[in-house]
Amino acid sequence: MAELGLTYESIYLDFRKGEQKAPEYTKYNPNGRIPTIIDHHNDDFVVWYSAAILTYLVDKYDTEHKISVTDPKEKIIQLQWLAFQISGQGPYYGQAVWFQKFHPEKFPSAVERYQKETYRVLGVLESVLSKQEWLVGGKATIADIAFVPWNTCVVPQILKGYNGFDFGKDFPAVFAWHEKIMARPAIKDVWAQEQALN
Amino acid sequence: MAELGLTYESIYLDFRKGEQKAPEYTKYNPNGRIPTIIDHHNDDFVVWYSAAILTYLVDKYDTEHKISVTDPKEKIIQLQWLAFQISGQGPYYGQAVWFQKFHPEKFPSAVERYQKETYRVLGVLESVLSKQEWLVGGKATIADIAFVPWNTCVVPQILKGYNGFDFGKDFPAVFAWHEKIMARPAIKDVWAQEQALN
Repeated sequence: MAELGLTYESIYLDFRKGEQKAPEYTKYNPNGRIPTIIDHHNDDFVVWYSAAILTYLVDKYDTEHKISVTDPKEKIIQLQWLAFQISGQGPYYGQAVWFQKFHPEKFPSAVERYQKETYRVLGVLESVLSKQEWLVGGKATIADIAFVPWNTCVVPQILKGYNGFDFGKDFPAVFAWHEKIMARPAIKDVWAQEQALN
Repeated sequence: MAELGLTYESIYLDFRKGEQKAPEYTKYNPNGRIPTIIDHHNDDFVVWYSAAILTYLVDKYDTEHKISVTDPKEKIIQLQWLAFQISGQGPYYGQAVWFQKFHPEKFPSAVERYQKETYRVLGVLESVLSKQEWLVGGKATIADIAFVPWNTCVVPQILKGYNGFDFGKDFPAVFAWHEKIMARPAIKDVWAQEQALN
Protein backbone atom coordinates (compact mmCIF):
# COMPACT_ATOMS: atom_id res chain seq x y z
CA MET A 1 0.00 0.00 0.00
CA ALA A 2 2.88 2.34 0.76
CA GLU A 3 4.44 1.52 -2.63
CA LEU A 4 1.16 2.48 -4.34
CA GLY A 5 0.67 5.62 -2.28
CA LEU A 6 -2.62 4.35 -0.85
CA THR A 7 -3.93 5.68 2.42
CA TYR A 8 -4.35 3.09 5.14
CA GLU A 9 -4.67 2.66 8.85
CA SER A 10 -2.72 -0.13 10.55
CA ILE A 11 -4.33 -1.94 13.44
CA TYR A 12 -1.82 -3.99 15.40
CA LEU A 13 -2.93 -7.02 17.37
CA ASP A 14 -1.33 -8.07 20.64
CA PHE A 15 -0.44 -11.75 20.23
CA ARG A 16 0.42 -12.09 23.92
CA LYS A 17 -3.22 -11.28 24.66
CA GLY A 18 -4.39 -13.60 21.85
CA GLU A 19 -6.13 -10.73 20.07
CA GLN A 20 -5.66 -12.55 16.75
CA LYS A 21 -7.88 -15.38 18.07
CA ALA A 22 -10.59 -13.11 19.50
CA PRO A 23 -14.05 -13.02 17.86
CA GLU A 24 -13.69 -9.33 16.90
CA TYR A 25 -10.85 -10.44 14.62
CA THR A 26 -11.89 -13.95 13.59
CA LYS A 27 -15.19 -12.62 12.28
CA TYR A 28 -13.02 -11.12 9.53
CA ASN A 29 -10.34 -13.80 9.40
CA PRO A 30 -11.44 -17.26 10.61
CA ASN A 31 -7.81 -18.41 10.44
CA GLY A 32 -6.90 -16.20 13.40
CA ARG A 33 -3.60 -15.11 11.90
CA ILE A 34 -2.37 -11.90 10.32
CA PRO A 35 -2.62 -10.03 7.97
CA THR A 36 -6.17 -9.12 6.97
CA ILE A 37 -7.33 -6.04 5.07
CA ILE A 38 -10.67 -4.32 5.01
CA ASP A 39 -11.07 -2.11 1.97
CA HIS A 40 -13.31 0.80 2.94
CA HIS A 41 -13.20 1.99 -0.67
CA ASN A 42 -14.75 -1.24 -1.93
CA ASP A 43 -17.78 -1.94 0.29
CA ASP A 44 -15.57 -3.02 3.20
CA PHE A 45 -14.32 -6.00 1.20
CA VAL A 46 -12.33 -8.30 3.49
CA VAL A 47 -9.35 -10.39 2.34
CA TRP A 48 -6.82 -12.34 4.35
CA TYR A 49 -3.58 -14.13 3.43
CA SER A 50 -0.74 -11.99 2.17
CA ALA A 51 -0.56 -13.49 -1.34
CA ALA A 52 -4.27 -12.85 -1.88
CA ILE A 53 -4.05 -9.36 -0.35
CA LEU A 54 -1.09 -8.38 -2.54
CA THR A 55 -2.79 -9.75 -5.66
CA TYR A 56 -5.98 -7.89 -4.78
CA LEU A 57 -4.18 -4.61 -4.17
CA VAL A 58 -2.32 -4.63 -7.49
CA ASP A 59 -5.33 -5.91 -9.47
CA LYS A 60 -7.44 -3.10 -8.14
CA TYR A 61 -5.07 -0.22 -7.47
CA ASP A 62 -1.84 -0.69 -9.41
CA THR A 63 -3.33 0.60 -12.65
CA GLU A 64 0.06 1.98 -13.72
CA HIS A 65 1.72 -1.36 -12.95
CA LYS A 66 4.39 0.15 -10.74
CA ILE A 67 4.87 -3.10 -8.79
CA SER A 68 3.00 -5.67 -10.85
CA VAL A 69 2.99 -7.22 -14.31
CA THR A 70 0.33 -7.00 -17.01
CA ASP A 71 0.83 -9.93 -19.36
CA PRO A 72 -1.44 -12.90 -18.46
CA LYS A 73 1.45 -15.39 -18.45
CA GLU A 74 3.60 -13.09 -16.32
CA LYS A 75 0.70 -12.65 -13.90
CA ILE A 76 0.68 -16.40 -13.35
CA ILE A 77 4.46 -16.42 -12.79
CA GLN A 78 4.03 -13.54 -10.34
CA LEU A 79 1.47 -15.70 -8.52
CA GLN A 80 3.78 -18.73 -8.68
CA TRP A 81 6.46 -16.83 -6.76
CA LEU A 82 3.94 -15.50 -4.25
CA ALA A 83 2.86 -19.12 -3.74
CA PHE A 84 6.47 -20.18 -3.16
CA GLN A 85 6.87 -17.34 -0.67
CA ILE A 86 3.84 -18.24 1.47
CA SER A 87 4.30 -22.00 1.20
CA GLY A 88 8.01 -22.63 0.65
CA GLN A 89 9.58 -19.72 2.51
CA GLY A 90 7.25 -18.56 5.30
CA PRO A 91 6.28 -21.84 6.98
CA TYR A 92 9.80 -23.30 6.89
CA TYR A 93 11.58 -20.19 8.11
CA GLY A 94 8.83 -19.98 10.72
CA GLN A 95 9.46 -23.54 11.95
CA ALA A 96 13.18 -22.75 12.24
CA VAL A 97 12.41 -19.79 14.51
CA TRP A 98 9.88 -21.90 16.45
CA PHE A 99 12.37 -24.65 17.31
CA GLN A 100 15.14 -22.12 17.97
CA LYS A 101 13.18 -19.84 20.27
CA PHE A 102 9.79 -21.12 21.35
CA HIS A 103 9.53 -24.91 21.48
CA PRO A 104 9.47 -26.10 25.12
CA GLU A 105 12.12 -28.77 24.42
CA LYS A 106 15.46 -28.37 22.65
CA PHE A 107 15.58 -30.44 19.45
CA PRO A 108 18.84 -29.68 17.61
CA SER A 109 17.95 -32.04 14.73
CA ALA A 110 14.63 -30.23 14.24
CA VAL A 111 16.38 -26.85 14.24
CA GLU A 112 18.87 -28.22 11.73
CA ARG A 113 16.09 -29.57 9.50
CA TYR A 114 14.60 -26.08 9.13
CA GLN A 115 17.93 -24.30 8.84
CA LYS A 116 18.73 -26.65 5.99
CA GLU A 117 15.39 -25.90 4.38
CA THR A 118 15.96 -22.14 4.79
CA TYR A 119 19.34 -22.56 3.11
CA ARG A 120 17.71 -24.59 0.33
CA VAL A 121 15.05 -21.91 -0.30
CA LEU A 122 17.77 -19.24 -0.58
CA GLY A 123 19.49 -21.56 -3.06
CA VAL A 124 16.35 -21.81 -5.18
CA LEU A 125 16.16 -18.01 -5.30
CA GLU A 126 19.90 -17.77 -6.07
CA SER A 127 19.55 -20.19 -9.00
CA VAL A 128 17.04 -17.81 -10.58
CA LEU A 129 18.37 -14.41 -9.47
CA SER A 130 21.90 -15.18 -10.60
CA LYS A 131 20.45 -15.21 -14.13
CA GLN A 132 17.90 -12.39 -13.92
CA GLU A 133 17.55 -9.25 -11.80
CA TRP A 134 13.93 -9.75 -10.69
CA LEU A 135 11.66 -12.78 -10.34
CA VAL A 136 9.23 -11.78 -13.07
CA GLY A 137 8.69 -9.14 -15.73
CA GLY A 138 12.14 -7.54 -15.56
CA LYS A 139 11.21 -5.24 -12.67
CA ALA A 140 10.51 -5.22 -8.92
CA THR A 141 7.01 -6.54 -8.26
CA ILE A 142 4.98 -7.84 -5.32
CA ALA A 143 6.62 -11.22 -6.02
CA ASP A 144 10.01 -9.83 -5.00
CA ILE A 145 8.75 -7.60 -2.19
CA ALA A 146 6.92 -10.50 -0.53
CA PHE A 147 10.18 -12.29 0.29
CA VAL A 148 11.70 -9.38 2.19
CA PRO A 149 10.20 -9.71 5.69
CA TRP A 150 11.28 -13.31 6.27
CA ASN A 151 14.67 -12.79 4.62
CA THR A 152 15.50 -10.12 7.19
CA CYS A 153 15.42 -12.93 9.82
CA VAL A 154 18.05 -15.03 8.09
CA VAL A 155 21.18 -13.25 9.35
CA PRO A 156 20.24 -12.32 12.93
CA GLN A 157 18.30 -15.49 13.73
CA ILE A 158 17.71 -18.50 11.52
CA LEU A 159 21.14 -19.06 9.94
CA LYS A 160 23.27 -17.25 12.54
CA GLY A 161 26.37 -19.42 12.86
CA TYR A 162 25.00 -22.10 10.53
CA ASN A 163 28.09 -23.63 8.87
CA GLY A 164 29.75 -20.21 8.80
CA PHE A 165 26.78 -18.71 6.97
CA ASP A 166 27.52 -15.44 5.18
CA PHE A 167 24.49 -14.12 3.28
CA GLY A 168 26.47 -11.99 0.81
CA LYS A 169 29.03 -14.70 0.09
CA ASP A 170 26.77 -17.75 0.06
CA PHE A 171 23.96 -16.17 -1.96
CA PRO A 172 25.35 -13.03 -3.64
CA ALA A 173 22.47 -12.53 -6.08
CA VAL A 174 19.79 -13.00 -3.39
CA PHE A 175 21.66 -10.67 -1.06
CA ALA A 176 21.95 -7.92 -3.69
CA TRP A 177 18.27 -8.34 -4.59
CA HIS A 178 17.24 -8.19 -0.94
CA GLU A 179 19.28 -5.02 -0.37
CA LYS A 180 17.82 -3.37 -3.46
CA ILE A 181 14.28 -4.00 -2.23
CA MET A 182 15.10 -2.86 1.30
CA ALA A 183 16.48 0.41 -0.13
CA ARG A 184 13.19 1.36 -1.83
CA PRO A 185 11.81 4.45 -0.06
CA ALA A 186 8.39 2.93 0.69
CA ILE A 187 9.90 -0.30 2.03
CA LYS A 188 12.48 1.60 4.07
CA ASP A 189 9.76 3.71 5.62
CA VAL A 190 7.48 0.75 6.47
CA TRP A 191 10.43 -1.22 7.83
CA ALA A 192 11.35 1.66 10.14
CA GLN A 193 7.77 1.69 11.44
CA GLU A 194 7.95 -2.07 12.01
CA GLN A 195 11.22 -1.74 13.91
CA ALA A 196 9.79 1.03 16.08
CA LEU A 197 7.05 -1.36 17.27
CA ASN A 198 9.49 -3.80 18.85
CA MET B 1 -7.56 -31.00 -15.73
CA ALA B 2 -9.78 -34.07 -15.39
CA GLU B 3 -12.62 -31.85 -14.13
CA LEU B 4 -12.30 -29.66 -17.24
CA GLY B 5 -11.98 -32.60 -19.62
CA LEU B 6 -8.53 -31.49 -20.77
CA THR B 7 -6.14 -34.01 -22.25
CA TYR B 8 -2.90 -34.43 -20.37
CA GLU B 9 -0.02 -36.77 -19.87
CA SER B 10 1.24 -37.42 -16.33
CA ILE B 11 4.96 -37.86 -15.79
CA TYR B 12 5.72 -39.32 -12.37
CA LEU B 13 9.05 -38.68 -10.71
CA ASP B 14 10.80 -41.22 -8.50
CA PHE B 15 11.62 -39.40 -5.27
CA ARG B 16 13.77 -42.31 -4.04
CA LYS B 17 16.05 -41.65 -7.00
CA GLY B 18 15.86 -37.86 -6.42
CA GLU B 19 14.40 -37.29 -9.86
CA GLN B 20 12.68 -34.13 -8.59
CA LYS B 21 16.15 -32.62 -7.91
CA ALA B 22 17.69 -33.65 -11.24
CA PRO B 23 18.57 -30.96 -13.81
CA GLU B 24 16.08 -32.35 -16.36
CA TYR B 25 13.36 -31.38 -13.89
CA THR B 26 14.82 -28.32 -12.14
CA LYS B 27 15.29 -26.61 -15.49
CA TYR B 28 11.48 -26.35 -15.40
CA ASN B 29 11.03 -26.04 -11.66
CA PRO B 30 14.01 -24.62 -9.73
CA ASN B 31 12.27 -25.51 -6.46
CA GLY B 32 12.77 -29.24 -7.14
CA ARG B 33 9.32 -30.17 -5.87
CA ILE B 34 6.09 -31.25 -7.55
CA PRO B 35 3.84 -30.40 -9.34
CA THR B 36 4.84 -28.58 -12.51
CA ILE B 37 2.86 -28.30 -15.74
CA ILE B 38 4.01 -27.66 -19.28
CA ASP B 39 1.20 -26.43 -21.49
CA HIS B 40 1.88 -27.67 -25.01
CA HIS B 41 -1.16 -25.71 -26.20
CA ASN B 42 0.35 -22.42 -25.03
CA ASP B 43 3.93 -22.33 -26.33
CA ASP B 44 5.08 -24.86 -23.72
CA PHE B 45 4.32 -22.41 -20.93
CA VAL B 46 5.73 -23.75 -17.66
CA VAL B 47 4.13 -23.13 -14.25
CA TRP B 48 4.87 -24.70 -10.88
CA TYR B 49 3.16 -24.52 -7.49
CA SER B 50 -0.33 -25.99 -7.26
CA ALA B 51 -2.16 -22.75 -6.43
CA ALA B 52 -0.62 -21.02 -9.46
CA ILE B 53 -1.28 -24.05 -11.69
CA LEU B 54 -4.93 -24.29 -10.65
CA THR B 55 -5.44 -20.56 -11.14
CA TYR B 56 -3.79 -20.74 -14.56
CA LEU B 57 -5.90 -23.70 -15.67
CA VAL B 58 -9.22 -22.11 -14.76
CA ASP B 59 -8.24 -18.66 -16.07
CA LYS B 60 -7.34 -20.16 -19.42
CA TYR B 61 -9.55 -23.21 -19.83
CA ASP B 62 -12.55 -22.99 -17.51
CA THR B 63 -14.43 -20.65 -19.81
CA GLU B 64 -17.77 -22.08 -18.65
CA HIS B 65 -16.74 -21.64 -15.00
CA LYS B 66 -17.48 -25.22 -14.03
CA ILE B 67 -15.00 -25.15 -11.13
CA SER B 68 -14.16 -21.48 -10.77
CA VAL B 69 -15.80 -18.16 -10.02
CA THR B 70 -16.16 -15.12 -12.28
CA ASP B 71 -16.75 -12.10 -10.07
CA PRO B 72 -13.48 -10.20 -9.35
CA LYS B 73 -14.07 -10.19 -5.57
CA GLU B 74 -14.91 -13.89 -5.57
CA LYS B 75 -11.76 -14.59 -7.59
CA ILE B 76 -9.72 -13.02 -4.79
CA ILE B 77 -11.55 -15.09 -2.16
CA GLN B 78 -10.92 -18.20 -4.28
CA LEU B 79 -7.22 -17.25 -4.23
CA GLN B 80 -7.35 -16.58 -0.48
CA TRP B 81 -8.45 -20.16 0.15
CA LEU B 82 -5.87 -21.56 -2.25
CA ALA B 83 -3.29 -19.57 -0.29
CA PHE B 84 -4.53 -21.03 3.00
CA GLN B 85 -4.34 -24.50 1.48
CA ILE B 86 -0.72 -24.24 0.30
CA SER B 87 0.49 -22.29 3.31
CA GLY B 88 -1.77 -23.21 6.24
CA GLN B 89 -2.72 -26.78 5.39
CA GLY B 90 0.01 -28.40 3.27
CA PRO B 91 3.18 -27.46 5.17
CA TYR B 92 1.70 -28.19 8.62
CA TYR B 93 0.10 -31.50 7.69
CA GLY B 94 3.38 -32.29 5.97
CA GLN B 95 5.43 -31.60 9.11
CA ALA B 96 3.09 -33.89 11.09
CA VAL B 97 3.77 -36.73 8.66
CA TRP B 98 7.50 -35.92 8.71
CA PHE B 99 7.85 -36.22 12.48
CA GLN B 100 5.55 -39.26 12.58
CA LYS B 101 7.24 -41.26 9.84
CA PHE B 102 10.53 -39.85 8.60
CA HIS B 103 12.45 -37.85 11.19
CA PRO B 104 15.49 -39.85 12.41
CA GLU B 105 14.65 -39.13 16.07
CA LYS B 106 11.31 -39.54 17.86
CA PHE B 107 9.99 -36.19 19.11
CA PRO B 108 6.50 -36.68 20.56
CA SER B 109 6.11 -32.96 21.35
CA ALA B 110 6.92 -32.07 17.75
CA VAL B 111 4.39 -34.62 16.46
CA GLU B 112 1.84 -33.18 18.85
CA ARG B 113 2.56 -29.63 17.71
CA TYR B 114 1.63 -30.50 14.14
CA GLN B 115 -1.31 -32.70 15.07
CA LYS B 116 -2.65 -29.75 17.01
CA GLU B 117 -2.12 -27.48 14.01
CA THR B 118 -3.87 -30.00 11.71
CA TYR B 119 -6.79 -30.05 14.13
CA ARG B 120 -6.81 -26.25 14.18
CA VAL B 121 -6.87 -26.02 10.38
CA LEU B 122 -9.84 -28.41 10.25
CA GLY B 123 -11.51 -26.16 12.83
CA VAL B 124 -10.99 -23.09 10.64
CA LEU B 125 -12.64 -24.90 7.74
CA GLU B 126 -15.46 -26.12 10.02
CA SER B 127 -16.17 -22.58 11.22
CA VAL B 128 -16.83 -21.55 7.61
CA LEU B 129 -18.37 -24.73 6.15
CA SER B 130 -20.86 -25.07 9.00
CA LYS B 131 -22.39 -21.84 7.65
CA GLN B 132 -22.00 -22.35 3.88
CA GLU B 133 -21.73 -25.37 1.61
CA TRP B 134 -18.64 -24.31 -0.36
CA LEU B 135 -15.73 -22.00 0.33
CA VAL B 136 -16.59 -19.44 -2.35
CA GLY B 137 -19.26 -18.65 -4.93
CA GLY B 138 -21.87 -21.15 -3.73
CA LYS B 139 -20.39 -24.04 -5.72
CA ALA B 140 -17.46 -26.45 -5.80
CA THR B 141 -14.36 -24.69 -7.13
CA ILE B 142 -10.62 -25.25 -7.24
CA ALA B 143 -10.53 -23.70 -3.75
CA ASP B 144 -12.47 -26.68 -2.34
CA ILE B 145 -10.82 -29.32 -4.51
CA ALA B 146 -7.32 -28.21 -3.47
CA PHE B 147 -7.88 -29.30 0.14
CA VAL B 148 -8.78 -32.90 -0.74
CA PRO B 149 -5.38 -34.59 -1.13
CA TRP B 150 -4.03 -33.61 2.30
CA ASN B 151 -7.37 -34.19 4.02
CA THR B 152 -7.30 -37.83 2.93
CA CYS B 153 -4.23 -38.24 5.20
CA VAL B 154 -6.02 -37.05 8.32
CA VAL B 155 -7.79 -40.28 9.30
CA PRO B 156 -5.23 -42.95 8.36
CA GLN B 157 -2.13 -41.01 9.43
CA ILE B 158 -1.95 -37.58 10.99
CA LEU B 159 -4.77 -37.66 13.55
CA LYS B 160 -5.07 -41.43 13.95
CA GLY B 161 -5.70 -41.94 17.67
CA TYR B 162 -5.28 -38.21 18.44
CA ASN B 163 -7.54 -37.57 21.46
CA GLY B 164 -10.08 -40.06 20.08
CA PHE B 165 -10.25 -38.17 16.78
CA ASP B 166 -13.36 -38.91 14.71
CA PHE B 167 -13.44 -36.87 11.51
CA GLY B 168 -17.23 -37.08 11.02
CA LYS B 169 -18.02 -36.27 14.65
CA ASP B 170 -15.35 -33.64 15.33
CA PHE B 171 -15.78 -31.76 12.05
CA PRO B 172 -19.12 -32.78 10.53
CA ALA B 173 -19.31 -29.99 7.95
CA VAL B 174 -15.71 -30.51 6.77
CA PHE B 175 -16.25 -34.26 6.59
CA ALA B 176 -19.45 -33.93 4.51
CA TRP B 177 -17.68 -31.42 2.21
CA HIS B 178 -14.68 -33.70 1.82
CA GLU B 179 -16.90 -36.68 0.95
CA LYS B 180 -18.87 -34.65 -1.59
CA ILE B 181 -15.68 -33.62 -3.39
CA MET B 182 -14.28 -37.15 -3.27
CA ALA B 183 -17.52 -38.44 -4.88
CA ARG B 184 -17.16 -36.24 -7.98
CA PRO B 185 -16.51 -38.54 -10.97
CA ALA B 186 -13.33 -36.77 -12.10
CA ILE B 187 -11.88 -36.73 -8.58
CA LYS B 188 -12.83 -40.36 -7.98
CA ASP B 189 -11.13 -41.37 -11.18
CA VAL B 190 -7.91 -39.43 -10.49
CA TRP B 191 -7.85 -40.70 -6.92
CA ALA B 192 -8.11 -44.31 -8.14
CA GLN B 193 -5.13 -43.67 -10.43
CA GLU B 194 -3.18 -42.21 -7.51
CA GLN B 195 -3.95 -45.22 -5.33
CA ALA B 196 -2.88 -47.61 -8.09
CA LEU B 197 0.58 -46.00 -8.09
CA ASN B 198 1.32 -46.97 -4.50
